[in-house]
Amino acid sequence: MDGAWLVAQREQFEQQLVLVLDRYLDVPHLISFRLQEAMRYAMLNGGKRARPLLCYAAGLDMGVAVDDLHLVAVAIEAVHVYSLVHDDLPCMDDDVLRRGKPTCHVAYDEPTALLVGDALQSLAFECLAESSLSPSIQVQQVKCLASAIGQLGMAGGQQLDLLAPQYRDMTVQDLEMIHRMKTGALIEASIVMGALAKSSGLSLSDRAGLRQFGRALGLAFQVMDDVLDVTSDTVSLGKTAGKDEAQNKATYVRFMGVEKAKNYAIQLNDEAKAALRQCSVSMPHCEALQEWLIARTF
Amino acid sequence: MDGAWLVAQREQFEQQLVLVLDRYLDVPHLISFRLQEAMRYAMLNGGKRARPLLCYAAGLDMGVAVDDLHLVAVAIEAVHVYSLVHDDLPCMDDDVLRRGKPTCHVAYDEPTALLVGDALQSLAFECLAESSLSPSIQVQQVKCLASAIGQLGMAGGQQLDLLAPQYRDMTVQDLEMIHRMKTGALIEASIVMGALAKSSGLSLSDRAGLRQFGRALGLAFQVMDDVLDVTSDTVSLGKTAGKDEAQNKATYVRFMGVEKAKNYAIQLNDEAKAALRQCSVSMPHCEALQEWLIARTF
Repeated sequence: MDGAWLVAQREQFEQQLVLVLDRYLDVPHLISFRLQEAMRYAMLNGGKRARPLLCYAAGLDMGVAVDDLHLVAVAIEAVHVYSLVHDDLPCMDDDVLRRGKPTCHVAYDEPTALLVGDALQSLAFECLAESSLSPSIQVQQVKCLASAIGQLGMAGGQQLDLLAPQYRDMTVQDLEMIHRMKTGALIEASIVMGALAKSSGLSLSDRAGLRQFGRALGLAFQVMDDVLDVTSDTVSLGKTAGKDEAQNKATYVRFMGVEKAKNYAIQLNDEAKAALRQCSVSMPHCEALQEWLIARTF
Repeated sequence: MDGAWLVAQREQFEQQLVLVLDRYLDVPHLISFRLQEAMRYAMLNGGKRARPLLCYAAGLDMGVAVDDLHLVAVAIEAVHVYSLVHDDLPCMDDDVLRRGKPTCHVAYDEPTALLVGDALQSLAFECLAESSLSPSIQVQQVKCLASAIGQLGMAGGQQLDLLAPQYRDMTVQDLEMIHRMKTGALIEASIVMGALAKSSGLSLSDRAGLRQFGRALGLAFQVMDDVLDVTSDTVSLGKTAGKDEAQNKATYVRFMGVEKAKNYAIQLNDEAKAALRQCSVSMPHCEALQEWLIARTF
């Protein structure tokens, strides 16, 4: 399996995304479409679409038909985009640019951006409930997504990350827990939700293997992100280098130094590969996607 | 059926709410519980619990066991509270008091309040997916809730309400659509979600009757709210009277005057009663709840 699948899959996802947005956001009788326009602006942002691709990869490797995965993939991306829109708000990270374009609250306004995030979260669950999968699979996916993004997942991790500068005795275990909640939980859920679509049911051991794959992969990216913030310049990074240091953020580089952090990222990447090999079937799409993502990061 | 049922049901709901919060928010290994504390603060606010009561009433009238309704009722209240917390934020209505207590962002801080709302929305879907109901009912409830609170429901209505002062040619139909989206959709969904829990399935005609009941009831409250803002004083209202006029808000009183607005509210209340009588079974819990809510408003 080579990278051609990925490029084609990403294109197909973008097409499906536009179809879903047309279906849910086309409302001719409203006196204003501002919210709908802003939701479209936020969703069609040229992102890497790593999470939907992980969902497709895990589902395809488990033998799921690609058409059964589109609404699940859109749901996952909607949640990811909602989290970016809310994280960019002035009361959070106060970012004005994302991928070179004005952030949602800059392009529109703060109340609109707040509602864009709120409505994208609802849209995600609407997509899951309207997919072609069986109700028992849909409910498992709703549970998986909801628990990954709530107070013990993405939202809780964002809160801990905001408070982190105040913790004096923070350990590397605390840092790992914060990352696992803030970004890892949704990455794990993206993979598991794709695999859950398997009509004959996902075995507990495959589910555990895929969770382990997602956990190690997500953490590998986070550690490399911390390394690159120190070792890269702003141009090759595509965002401001040295920002972590300037913001006094807790990072892996601070805890273990650049060299050890690099080695830890490589170790995590190997762990992710090993976890994939534990699955009951071969996982060529997941392997190809891991290679592709790693080539763009490490 | 008298008001005793309501008082007992509300008490039972408060107990169940605490149990659910204990289960989902008790996380001893975290380095901070601030988000969890703030979610509890927002949820345990001494509200009327009108929406959970509507869910119980419709479910009980349809023959659903009360224990099958608790998680659904908690989900509905979690969504309602999330909307209050976000609406109170500085970039929205900028309210510092709710029911005489500091609003969430005042008691905690803005980022925490933003995340409280986000996590409460996720918690709502988690509760729906973990109820004792069958997967096909759970999926219908997820769909019903998600579509009621997204871009064509609560979030979309809030956006239109924020923009309303800019519309020069607004009609009473526009005003009605805004209210129906902003507050009516969740009220309708609360009733329908309770009735959907009926194991033998909710007939389309009963569903339509209950939607009509919810639509008319929700609008009746909104119209009376507009009337009371003009005719009551701050003390008996429990909130600042004359606020609509001062904020130049579009209201039913402005469109039709006090007397016609009062008559319209009475007409809507009668419509709600008539819609209930169209259902295939008698609806004593819903009737009692309507009486009780009306006695506290009209």
